[in-house]
Amino acid sequence: MALEFPKIEDLHNAALAVNLQRKLDGKTKPLGALGHLESLAHQLGMILGSETPDLHLPQLLVCAADHGMAARGVSAYPSDVTWQMVGNFLAGGAAVSVLARQHSITQTVVDCGVRHDFPAAPGLLNRKIAQGTQDASQGPAMSLAQCEQAVTNGMQIVQDMPGNALLLGEMGIGNTSAAALLLARLADIDVAECAGAGTGLNEEGIARKTAVLREALAANKEACEPLPVLAALGGFEIATLTGAVLTAAHQRRVILVDGFISSSAVMVASKLAPFVLQRCIFAHRSSEQGHARMLREMSATPLFDLGLRLGEGSGAALAWPMLVSACAILRDMASFESAGVSGKSE
Amino acid sequence: MALEFPKIEDLHNAALAVNLQRKLDGKTKPLGALGHLESLAHQLGMILGSETPDLHLPQLLVCAADHGMAARGVSAYPSDVTWQMVGNFLAGGAAVSVLARQHSITQTVVDCGVRHDFPAAPGLLNRKIAQGTQDASQGPAMSLAQCEQAVTNGMQIVQDMPGNALLLGEMGIGNTSAAALLLARLADIDVAECAGAGTGLNEEGIARKTAVLREALAANKEACEPLPVLAALGGFEIATLTGAVLTAAHQRRVILVDGFISSSAVMVASKLAPFVLQRCIFAHRSSEQGHARMLREMSATPLFDLGLRLGEGSGAALAWPMLVSACAILRDMASFESAGVSGKSE
Repeated sequence: MALEFPKIEDLHNAALAVNLQRKLDGKTKPLGALGHLESLAHQLGMILGSETPDLHLPQLLVCAADHGMAARGVSAYPSDVTWQMVGNFLAGGAAVSVLARQHSITQTVVDCGVRHDFPAAPGLLNRKIAQGTQDASQGPAMSLAQCEQAVTNGMQIVQDMPGNALLLGEMGIGNTSAAALLLARLADIDVAECAGAGTGLNEEGIARKTAVLREALAANKEACEPLPVLAALGGFEIATLTGAVLTAAHQRRVILVDGFISSSAVMVASKLAPFVLQRCIFAHRSSEQGHARMLREMSATPLFDLGLRLGEGSGAALAWPMLVSACAILRDMASFESAGVSGKSE
Repeated sequence: MALEFPKIEDLHNAALAVNLQRKLDGKTKPLGALGHLESLAHQLGMILGSETPDLHLPQLLVCAADHGMAARGVSAYPSDVTWQMVGNFLAGGAAVSVLARQHSITQTVVDCGVRHDFPAAPGLLNRKIAQGTQDASQGPAMSLAQCEQAVTNGMQIVQDMPGNALLLGEMGIGNTSAAALLLARLADIDVAECAGAGTGLNEEGIARKTAVLREALAANKEACEPLPVLAALGGFEIATLTGAVLTAAHQRRVILVDGFISSSAVMVASKLAPFVLQRCIFAHRSSEQGHARMLREMSATPLFDLGLRLGEGSGAALAWPMLVSACAILRDMASFESAGVSGKSE
């Protein structure tokens, strides 16, 4: 099977860019006084191809999967937490579920490869590739075929989703390890700079995790291109998200990225198609140490830093109203001209 | 007239503090994984005296006034912009009006001393002390009696307001100068470190502004205590906000602070009654240079830094949904126990 990626074009549109900037500059405020909210409004206008961008029917995808490497003690929590948290998402009790409800964001949970069989449930999609990945410290986490199937699943899920905005979320005990490995290999950084506390390892635990990650890099040293790297070192949820990002970017959806794991899927997608990043808004800088490094790798400036390190899409859901605000500024704020307000006296 | 301040007590409640922390720690997430959002939830619980704090009917006060010192060229915009922007607030076209509408925050504009006579209008309170302050570079901006009247106005306005949360906003050409003077005098900092670009001065303009501010400090060198300092160097809108903050704190409302000017009112109030700060949430760090210094003076950590420098309450309105999120986390998120999720394996 040869995976075919959707075409992702440069959003470049000089006339629209100028018009959006002119519109922002004409609003009743000193030039640039709304700071990063103005660049956000500009980006939303460029993505949606409109001087009055309007967000509707936001979709949050929570991709869940297990990791063979978790058996090596790289996480502070047991693998069972993955399937238990899927239940928590479906019951609406997880942090991201609470935040999604607050903002009327539709939550869809995807079983991309959780080590548990779920009964069918509303809001749950079964796209299970296997009962968790293989242990990456012993060889590839997935076969290339499995990885391509997960990416394809992500592409297909987004294809027919309503709305024009996608929020990225995930759940998977062990997945900060996968994200750290992807960063280490794709950005050529020592894995010690990529690995952090995850769900709450102490210093000794981080050292143990880092040692296992070095084994994984050694066991998969031939993987260099984005897709083989994703297969060797990633996870089913990250691969599914990578596909979701590619199709969302192709369809010019706004992509609101959460923390370290979601960002790793974006990083992989951006290595396959760099223009993906034009469509991405990074909600926050996580306190997981590798995230700052990963954001730099993508030249991304997040909206805020609240020391979050939960994942699930919680930071993205928290940031959502800021995107709505940015659109409202462009659409509803008066101009100096329309409001009859004087300009600068200098 | 001897101004009587409302009593503001220490929120200290050891049992509630422990219960709130226990409740947060029992939620389905690694310990502390929601970072600053958890400390925010804890603070909201302490202010509202509840393990399930609930925010309702948020009130945004936009206090407007003119400054005599504006005639000295300390702002990039003419004083007329103050009254013109009042019209823009009332018409719903200002940034803060758009954001307040997005979040169903009630906006009330107060004419505390604008150099313009407004016809009566819904959403506008007339609490005008005078047609702008005197030029502080020549002597006190207000008499002590005027200042006390403005503080009293603020206290009375909040007294009967519905809801349990107050958002601070302001408008007044020249008021970054007043805020810089208050910071310089009350925190004993060189005014050059307190003064910034305001609505958009260039380097030369900032130098000119700083020189005028030095004159104002020299012309009012006898003012040292908070209230005389507020009278000598502040503004009608800042004094009115100071009173609003005092009564809001007394009534245990949540106080959501915007940028440099709003923070200066909080700083004055906290010098009069230090426990005020327990009730304050600082929305953001403004790019006006004195704001970071002022926040440090109050040991305040803002929620975000988006490079905003508009005032009006725009940053506070933008931050509002994060407060609602923090309450929702405490109230609606499942616990490990209730959701049947396993704990840490270490």
